[in-house]
Amino acid sequence: MLSKKIEEIVKNIKPLNKILLEQTQERLNNLTKPLGSLGQLEDIAKQLVAIIGKDKQVLKNKTIFTLAGDHGVAEEGISAYPKEVTQQMVYNFINGGAGVNVLARHVGARVVVVDMGVGEKLQVKSEKLKVKKVAYGTRNFTKGPAMTEEEAIKSIEAGIEIVEEEIKNSGIELIGTGDMGIGNTTPSAAIASVVCNVEPETVTGRGTGINDKVLQNKIDVIKRGIEKNKPDSNNGIDILSKLGGYEIGGLAGIMIAGASHRIPVVIDGFISGAAALVADKISPLAKQYWIAAHCSTEPGHKIMLEYLNLRPLLNLNMRLGEGTGSALAMNLIDASLKILNEMATFDSAGVSKKE
Amino acid sequence: MLSKKIEEIVKNIKPLNKILLEQTQERLNNLTKPLGSLGQLEDIAKQLVAIIGKDKQVLKNKTIFTLAGDHGVAEEGISAYPKEVTQQMVYNFINGGAGVNVLARHVGARVVVVDMGVGEKLQVKSEKLKVKKVAYGTRNFTKGPAMTEEEAIKSIEAGIEIVEEEIKNSGIELIGTGDMGIGNTTPSAAIASVVCNVEPETVTGRGTGINDKVLQNKIDVIKRGIEKNKPDSNNGIDILSKLGGYEIGGLAGIMIAGASHRIPVVIDGFISGAAALVADKISPLAKQYWIAAHCSTEPGHKIMLEYLNLRPLLNLNMRLGEGTGSALAMNLIDASLKILNEMATFDSAGVSKKE
Repeated sequence: MLSKKIEEIVKNIKPLNKILLEQTQERLNNLTKPLGSLGQLEDIAKQLVAIIGKDKQVLKNKTIFTLAGDHGVAEEGISAYPKEVTQQMVYNFINGGAGVNVLARHVGARVVVVDMGVGEKLQVKSEKLKVKKVAYGTRNFTKGPAMTEEEAIKSIEAGIEIVEEEIKNSGIELIGTGDMGIGNTTPSAAIASVVCNVEPETVTGRGTGINDKVLQNKIDVIKRGIEKNKPDSNNGIDILSKLGGYEIGGLAGIMIAGASHRIPVVIDGFISGAAALVADKISPLAKQYWIAAHCSTEPGHKIMLEYLNLRPLLNLNMRLGEGTGSALAMNLIDASLKILNEMATFDSAGVSKKE
Repeated sequence: MLSKKIEEIVKNIKPLNKILLEQTQERLNNLTKPLGSLGQLEDIAKQLVAIIGKDKQVLKNKTIFTLAGDHGVAEEGISAYPKEVTQQMVYNFINGGAGVNVLARHVGARVVVVDMGVGEKLQVKSEKLKVKKVAYGTRNFTKGPAMTEEEAIKSIEAGIEIVEEEIKNSGIELIGTGDMGIGNTTPSAAIASVVCNVEPETVTGRGTGINDKVLQNKIDVIKRGIEKNKPDSNNGIDILSKLGGYEIGGLAGIMIAGASHRIPVVIDGFISGAAALVADKISPLAKQYWIAAHCSTEPGHKIMLEYLNLRPLLNLNMRLGEGTGSALAMNLIDASLKILNEMATFDSAGVSKKE
């Protein structure tokens, strides 16, 4: 059962305007280039206009939301890094030293860090940090659900709130997603396995860099988690509560809130992909508002993207998360709008058309 | 036989500094991210430092060279556009309305347009246009060599001059390649077939958008051209003179000149790829200085990149040429240097390392 708040957000998600899609296609066809020769840039330009309308030529106040949470399942020894790194990296985000900070500055985006469920109380106050903590980390899903259904709903609602607060504060026009959470490729692979209906082996990767033995354990842990909890593969809340994480729920909330408020959402990597699978079960229309930033080296990510029918913009062998892929993709998204608005037409440039 | 000028340029191309590569790898390993998790951005950062040294943290005066030339083989009806478009597009480049202009502005690069062999005398003078015209278009390679050996050498030398003039004028730190020439996917596919030793069918695509019938004719034309001229697949000058184009020769010159002057060269799409195959035959070391911008939809491009062992940064279904891929890639290249220079280390950020 969805909450009233989530239901209202979902109700406002409308399919993209077909007339705007067609008009933009026509405009693209008149630009001085062979038909379709700018490939995905043209697809993105069309999608953007259908979301934001024809008048907006630049996306201002680009914001990457980097959501952090800890995972009970980390106690099963499935990560290469100790759990305290989640918290340490939050400080790194606030201080501007992490990968996502560097790349967000590079593309002119802000980073908003959110504590969705870090295992410790954070010892810092900063305007760059939002605290929406649902709990001090999820529970170990090999022993039962990672969170209650109420917590799952609360995490999604927190994602919606984050977007709505930032719309009020700064009129955000492009959203990027990002994550931090030691162990979180494990719940993400579990979600991929259930939703995409593939074996855990197929979607489980080395995350931050585990060896063969730990990888085998990780696969076993995922199998045990799915066996123990038996999630309903068509129920986003059920999947999230049994196998998810608080940052995953928050990201799913951001993705449906963006669609509801007609703001394009750039979907980062594997963890954001798991959140997208959850969000897609809650609102199958929402993905019309999403742009896949990149395909990571986690083997399950490609499967997720194919399931969602999203074609990633980048394929750079990245697997850092945080929103690093979102940041890089934002530059291409800006480029696509400029192509649409700044290129000469065959008529204006006096260039002959196809024979 | 190479000219003295080309031989001197080639002689100065040295292998990348291994110590700088190792030191940069060490620095990357200490940044707050799992080892290697920024994938190709890390590879590019290493390559850049090995080319430009440790002290330069920003690449200034990025310049995209868009070289234009016409092709005698166009009279065989292998393109979807009339030949006059080459010239018309040169005016479009000068006026800033083409795709490459928009994307170059987007990434803070200049576009330098070069007439290498446009079929008409251009009716414009502009500081944005260089005239290095070798001849008014190549000859139809189904009837004999596209150009003389002297012209092939002259076109490569022109590419070298272009780079050296711009180094003097503006201290260029990153080069991008680009092309314009109606019909030029035909010589490019012919070069790919000969150098990569694959059938013309495998490397011939639809260029600006030809139909099945024209595609079949294009393949036949390429087969006839190869049969007629019997180029030596290991001799860059022979391949260029028999099957190439003046813009292709100029681009090959730019690629070896960049390597010789220790300036990274971003290689655009299919036509630039053909030039890279020629340049690689002249200097097999030069490619250590090259970065493949993207993989185009022309089927032969992937084969070229694999032959050269270059991994493209982007894969956006593009096939416009002009340097549009180079421009987009420049943003990723800038990003890679920022990652190296701006990210916090595990020590500086107090983040725990791998267990």
